[in-house]
Formats: sequence, C-alpha cells, structure tokens
Amino acid sequence: MEWSEQDTTNCSVGRTAEIVGRPWVLLVLREIFRGLHRFDEIQRHLGVSTAMLARRLEFLAEEGLLVSRPYRVPGRRERNEYHLSAAGRELFPILAALHEWGDAHLADDDGPATTYRHRDCGAEVRLTFTCADGHTLTEGFQEIVAEPGPGARALGSMPH
Amino acid sequence: MEWSEQDTTNCSVGRTAEIVGRPWVLLVLREIFRGLHRFDEIQRHLGVSTAMLARRLEFLAEEGLLVSRPYRVPGRRERNEYHLSAAGRELFPILAALHEWGDAHLADDDGPATTYRHRDCGAEVRLTFTCADGHTLTEGFQEIVAEPGPGARALGSMPH
Repeated sequence: MEWSEQDTTNCSVGRTAEIVGRPWVLLVLREIFRGLHRFDEIQRHLGVSTAMLARRLEFLAEEGLLVSRPYRVPGRRERNEYHLSAAGRELFPILAALHEWGDAHLADDDGPATTYRHRDCGAEVRLTFTCADGHTLTEGFQEIVAEPGPGARALGSMPH
Repeated sequence: MEWSEQDTTNCSVGRTAEIVGRPWVLLVLREIFRGLHRFDEIQRHLGVSTAMLARRLEFLAEEGLLVSRPYRVPGRRERNEYHLSAAGRELFPILAALHEWGDAHLADDDGPATTYRHRDCGAEVRLTFTCADGHTLTEGFQEIVAEPGPGARALGSMPH
C-alpha cells in the first residue's frame, strides 16, 4: 500500500502531534522535565497568566501525562505539585529531538543554553537511530524505510 | 545556575517548538518525509484547502526547511515539487519521536499504522540515547542530566 493510499487517521505522528505538538504544551513539559513542579515556580519561569497555566496543567493531567501530588508549606493552604506520569516521562525523546535540532540550527553564537549529559559518565548525550539487529544508523532518515504497519488501512476503508 | 534562574529565551526546545511544534507543520512534514512532493498529492492526502496548504508550504520554505523544484507534466503549466532541505531532513528524529510515543500509547488494537525499518537489514528502527563515551542509555530520561550550556544566561541579564 502506497502512503498516498493509506488512511492517516490512525497515524501515530498525527495523534501524538494533536496532544503535545503545540508550543505551550512543550514548554510546560520542558519546565517539569527540568525540575520545576510547583505552580508558582512554573508560572514565574514561563511568565504566563494563572488562568492559562491552570488550563495547560489540567489538559496535561487529563491526557494522563501529569499527576498532581499535594504538598503544604507551613502556614499556607495545601497545594499541588505536578510530576510526569510514566507515559509523560516517555515524551522525553520528543523534547530531546527538538533540543538537538535547535542546538544545531538556532543556537546563538555563544552556543546552546543547555547540555544533556549521561548521568553516569558525564559525556554528552545524543539521540541515535538503532535497529533491532544492533546496527547504528549514522545517516538518519536516509537509512530508514517507512512501510505500512499491522494497523495500516486503505483510504476509504472501514476501521477493523 | 538553577534552571529556575536561567533565561529561557535562547532555549533550543522553545525555539524549535515555535517553528515546527504545531500539528499542521508536523503533518505537512510527515507527508513529504513519506514521499509526497506535489501540491495536489499532499492536498488530497491531508484533505486541506488550497489556501491553507499554500500558506503551510510557503512558511516551511521561508524557514529553510523545504526547497521547491519545478516540474512540468506534458500539456500543463510548470508547477513546483517540495523537497526537504538538509536542515529539513534533520527534523526526522522529531517525527520519529512522536511516532514512537504514539505507537506505544495511542495505537489501535490492530497495531501501528507505520513501521520504520533499517534500509539495509529490514529490522525495526528505534530512537536510542547514546553518549559520546559510547554508552547506550536504556532508561532514557532517568539517566540524563540537563545542565547549563555555554550559552546559558541568568534571567534578567543582557544577551552577550
């Protein structure tokens, strides 16, 4: 089946893009991956309104990407911290891929603002394509063939 | 410098998200990565209006992600095909990361619509984190430390 004849409604790129493929979602996720968990910390760093950040966090929680945990500062009312769920943590390669492309193409002359390092050895980390037979693909997209998967459907066909 | 004290305006995640972090950009890029290059092919497959697709392609060309190449079908006027630039091809890990997350979390019961395979051996391809010292990071985000890079600036400081 050619891609042009394949139904796109169950494409994983499209479905994921509909959830996290928006700048404001990616920025909130970035803040939480970088260790900010409290509403006022995230709000101060992103410079967004209370209403907007509340909507963003609620959306991410509804999508199962964040979980909230109550905390209490002595003398103040209970509030929530926002942490990534297991599914949320698995979004990290998306942010890392954005980060790498931006570092390569959009960094200022003084270099990238952030470096990702391997916790154990301190060396810089990169995303790499590998295959199930153990090969490392050094040329990226040029070495990859996209083909219809088990859920592929022809345009105009009924879902299984 | 703590992340909460770091200026976010030169963050590569944010800068890249502002360009490609929108569903419609990601969908048009997907079509071109999957081998559709002509306006009417892309339009038919995505089901978008002529004006909207024209704006999307123009935006991606202005950002340097696409290049247009003229072609002519006999008896018709010259038209443009749209191909990825070198910088555009380097966006592939972003789409692959969206694809992998969607396959794991959003696929229908019959499985993913698309499989990525290594062109040389046919085995399935995945994104992996590796470090410059040659280690493969099997735990993803848990094994990565993000720290200020050479371009890091404190909030409120002037750009270099």
